[in-house]
Amino acid sequence: MTEPHTAPAFYRAGPLSVAVIMTGGTIAKSYDPAKARLYNFELKVKDIIDGLRTDDLRITFIDLMQLDSLDIGDAERVRIAEAVAEASKRHDAVLVTHGTDSMPLSGEVLCATTGAATVPVIFTGAMVPFSVSGTDAIQNVTEALLALRLLPPGAYIAFHNRILSLPGVRKDYDSLTFEEA
Amino acid sequence: MTEPHTAPAFYRAGPLSVAVIMTGGTIAKSYDPAKARLYNFELKVKDIIDGLRTDDLRITFIDLMQLDSLDIGDAERVRIAEAVAEASKRHDAVLVTHGTDSMPLSGEVLCATTGAATVPVIFTGAMVPFSVSGTDAIQNVTEALLALRLLPPGAYIAFHNRILSLPGVRKDYDSLTFEEA
Amino acid sequence: MTEPHTAPAFYRAGPLSVAVIMTGGTIAKSYDPAKARLYNFELKVKDIIDGLRTDDLRITFIDLMQLDSLDIGDAERVRIAEAVAEASKRHDAVLVTHGTDSMPLSGEVLCATTGAATVPVIFTGAMVPFSVSGTDAIQNVTEALLALRLLPPGAYIAFHNRILSLPGVRKDYDSLTFEEA
Amino acid sequence: MTEPHTAPAFYRAGPLSVAVIMTGGTIAKSYDPAKARLYNFELKVKDIIDGLRTDDLRITFIDLMQLDSLDIGDAERVRIAEAVAEASKRHDAVLVTHGTDSMPLSGEVLCATTGAATVPVIFTGAMVPFSVSGTDAIQNVTEALLALRLLPPGAYIAFHNRILSLPGVRKDYDSLTFEEA
Repeated sequence: MTEPHTAPAFYRAGPLSVAVIMTGGTIAKSYDPAKARLYNFELKVKDIIDGLRTDDLRITFIDLMQLDSLDIGDAERVRIAEAVAEASKRHDAVLVTHGTDSMPLSGEVLCATTGAATVPVIFTGAMVPFSVSGTDAIQNVTEALLALRLLPPGAYIAFHNRILSLPGVRKDYDSLTFEEA
Repeated sequence: MTEPHTAPAFYRAGPLSVAVIMTGGTIAKSYDPAKARLYNFELKVKDIIDGLRTDDLRITFIDLMQLDSLDIGDAERVRIAEAVAEASKRHDAVLVTHGTDSMPLSGEVLCATTGAATVPVIFTGAMVPFSVSGTDAIQNVTEALLALRLLPPGAYIAFHNRILSLPGVRKDYDSLTFEEA
Repeated sequence: MTEPHTAPAFYRAGPLSVAVIMTGGTIAKSYDPAKARLYNFELKVKDIIDGLRTDDLRITFIDLMQLDSLDIGDAERVRIAEAVAEASKRHDAVLVTHGTDSMPLSGEVLCATTGAATVPVIFTGAMVPFSVSGTDAIQNVTEALLALRLLPPGAYIAFHNRILSLPGVRKDYDSLTFEEA
Repeated sequence: MTEPHTAPAFYRAGPLSVAVIMTGGTIAKSYDPAKARLYNFELKVKDIIDGLRTDDLRITFIDLMQLDSLDIGDAERVRIAEAVAEASKRHDAVLVTHGTDSMPLSGEVLCATTGAATVPVIFTGAMVPFSVSGTDAIQNVTEALLALRLLPPGAYIAFHNRILSLPGVRKDYDSLTFEEA
């Protein structure tokens, strides 16, 4: 049993302005019947959020790139960090949807290249595309959108009922989830 | 823009023991084709949670009652409060699934009849059954299961991207959601 | 083993003009979260068909009535028969979506009050609403839309992998399907 | 308007014994989160049929091969034809699930290498996997299972509200459906 805590909760009620920076990844993959393969189609993340009740969130969708995680290199990570820094100036929180293979690395570059976070910046994605049965996309996006109300400024991954502080996260390829590095 | 906060986050990482007390309500309704109507079938809440990745939660399901919210009276509210108090002794958190019409009232009775909460007790449910397209059940349960990691001991409703402290919550019948009373 | 047949198949290839006469019933029921009950919302049948690939069908949707099967009386059955007769003049086939409790009776009234069918008239519906998980609506509508290519003029119920000629059909309340009376 | 026909319908009511020969193809592809790609997992076709009401069909599932359509060569087509011939001796109808790219070719080999069909042999599959949203797998399997009651012995493709006699069918890569060659 975990010890009971008495610390006050951190919670931001009411209207929040949220930037959703979309970079591609498994979460946004759709099936292309002409080519019989999955491809990145960014608007899927908007579809996920449109399926949720988030009356007090004013969301701005930023279609930054549509890349598989393995195709994101150093230059792209810098672009993501810059986009997060820019969005942080005008929003109460930033959500970054990203492929899982290099999500922790993009989070590390963000932490290394920008100053102290002024808002919560939450990375998430999915192991199974939103368009595929058994997807974890809805769970992860739901968690990320609640976490931005409950977490102080900083960079995190919200995934599979876990909040993990960046840097210091790794993808576990056996259990297909994220954990502390 | 909301002011940036600097308070430390409250977060409980790692394995948690969670009691899920099921009382019925819209969230758990299934369709009975023989009678052409919806009825309460409690195991639906287990089905919802089985569809999520919650590797670090050890969940005990308690099938307390299977009632429509409007059929829950004073006696039932006392039973719920007692069940929560009992479960709080042996678990790190308690989730109560409940019909929406009298969820705030059951929360008030809980607050009035038991001492200070020793663990987070989170009520949730749904405006549309899990078995019906467009359901909000997955969102609400996902939020409740994350909230119990991020909230200090106390009683809350987690619903539609909001955390509301009990007592002091009302169901808004126009927008079909919960808000501060 | 059934004896092998050698009769030529009846099949109408290519573009067909189809009238879909919607009368309500379980198939078209949606959930009303404000009233916490199911109600008839006719456009559901169009949603089902829009989810299918039917490139060669030109479909006209006729929103005749939105009634639970048990609320359809003699006057309504005459109206349905008249609508079918009228639609038969201008279409290659007619599909009638109807509640299951009195679908056979409406079919009998149709057979008794109109002359020999000039096109296939196929009744269908569902035991579980299209909006509810586990629905049989997609199966039944898919079957009905194929059956109108394979059946000669006449009145039928297409349901659960069965084609049943009207009159002479009953709803079996134990197995919740239709069978020969 | 198509001319009204007066030919009697071909229809086999009551219990039928059906062999479902599964060969792989898009219809049966599932998502492998470890490899982030789709792969063939044959039991998907059983899952589709288990979701339908087919009380009078006694179905035998034959897991013949699990190949992408493009990986099926001459030797595999002969194996499929032999399996169909064998199954035709002991069943009232045969359903073959197959990838779409070479489904017509496998149908031609079947027609060329076996004698006159003694039962209906119906090929089907899907342009979008059963596990992916927007799938046409349920429609096609539903149609195939009804077609085997309504078609005389012979080889056919049932797909997208069309029945196409083999040989003489081609996949149209623009509209992603089958049509007469």
